[in-house]
Amino acid sequence: MTTDPRTSRRVPAGAAVLREDVTDAIRAAVFEELAAVGFARMSIEGIARRAGVGKTAVYRRWKSKLALVLDLLSVFAAQGLPAPATGSLYGDVRALLEVASHALRHPVASQVIPDLLVEAARHPEISDAIKAALLDGQQGIAAVIVREAVERGELPEGTDPDRALDLTVGPLYWRLVVVRNDLPKGYLDMLAASAVAALKGGA
Amino acid sequence: MTTDPRTSRRVPAGAAVLREDVTDAIRAAVFEELAAVGFARMSIEGIARRAGVGKTAVYRRWKSKLALVLDLLSVFAAQGLPAPATGSLYGDVRALLEVASHALRHPVASQVIPDLLVEAARHPEISDAIKAALLDGQQGIAAVIVREAVERGELPEGTDPDRALDLTVGPLYWRLVVVRNDLPKGYLDMLAASAVAALKGGA
Repeated sequence: MTTDPRTSRRVPAGAAVLREDVTDAIRAAVFEELAAVGFARMSIEGIARRAGVGKTAVYRRWKSKLALVLDLLSVFAAQGLPAPATGSLYGDVRALLEVASHALRHPVASQVIPDLLVEAARHPEISDAIKAALLDGQQGIAAVIVREAVERGELPEGTDPDRALDLTVGPLYWRLVVVRNDLPKGYLDMLAASAVAALKGGA
Repeated sequence: MTTDPRTSRRVPAGAAVLREDVTDAIRAAVFEELAAVGFARMSIEGIARRAGVGKTAVYRRWKSKLALVLDLLSVFAAQGLPAPATGSLYGDVRALLEVASHALRHPVASQVIPDLLVEAARHPEISDAIKAALLDGQQGIAAVIVREAVERGELPEGTDPDRALDLTVGPLYWRLVVVRNDLPKGYLDMLAASAVAALKGGA
């Protein structure tokens, strides 16, 4: 177990005290259940059993498994990173790909989000939470990278940040999550150079 | 209903006669059930009810829901198309993107395959069937496109067809299946030009 700074958080006087270590154990159990059996088969009973707590301990914190999963995604989304600002389009794209390659190999992205994408068709809240977890951070970074490249004259005015994201993260997502190919040495360098060429050449 | 050439298939003398219209109705029901409730929740009872047949009619044809889904994927995979052979790398990539954009908007790709990708972690047979349905055809086409472009001098010797596929289909899959953005007018033209620039510039 690593030390979680949240476990030392003060609880407001008068509020029902919910033990943070129990909360963390339940969050970890949700995550493991999602990876093991998927959203459709996951149950509050299974989560409580895996966390070694009673069902009441779960229901005291979240009203449903949907609420639990949305909370998990919001924690993942909050791990967003600042834009790289390396001073060149290639450097920024390469740094974005480095971060994205780690994020996409994280089990939340490689196993839990594909599962939840399936549920998203039936639960709009899940669809919104996935967009927030998977896209908002990256779209914000892409917008900054493109704006700075336009200011430096590396990209034409009006370059669409969504297109930039399609061309950089798209190939990586396809390779890591869909095809499940490995990343050969130098692949991210090549992909960064390809994306820069694509952004400059496909306008 | 369109005419299905399979319905006029001859049945070998002596074999148990399985009515092809019933087989087709069951296949269609599997497809609808997968899209509606997902693999995890899908049951043979639900499929039989939707197809308007008894459970026995299903079990006479397939031994399990896994066998049914693998059969469905193999039918989808068999719809592969010949390589475009337009005479230029841009033309070939543009044609591949046209085909892929239709395939990726087909419910099998947009709803059923993401669902099954989740199951693939637990069922290696599904993983293999998805690779066959989603990849083998496209990898074959990419290999031909790259080989012909190398012969014309448009791409350097040793260009990796998997990389070509990452750079062309990857952005499209990301946009259509993950982000679920629409395709603005001219997007496939832009993407084809980008992919060609990326293949030439990122080597």
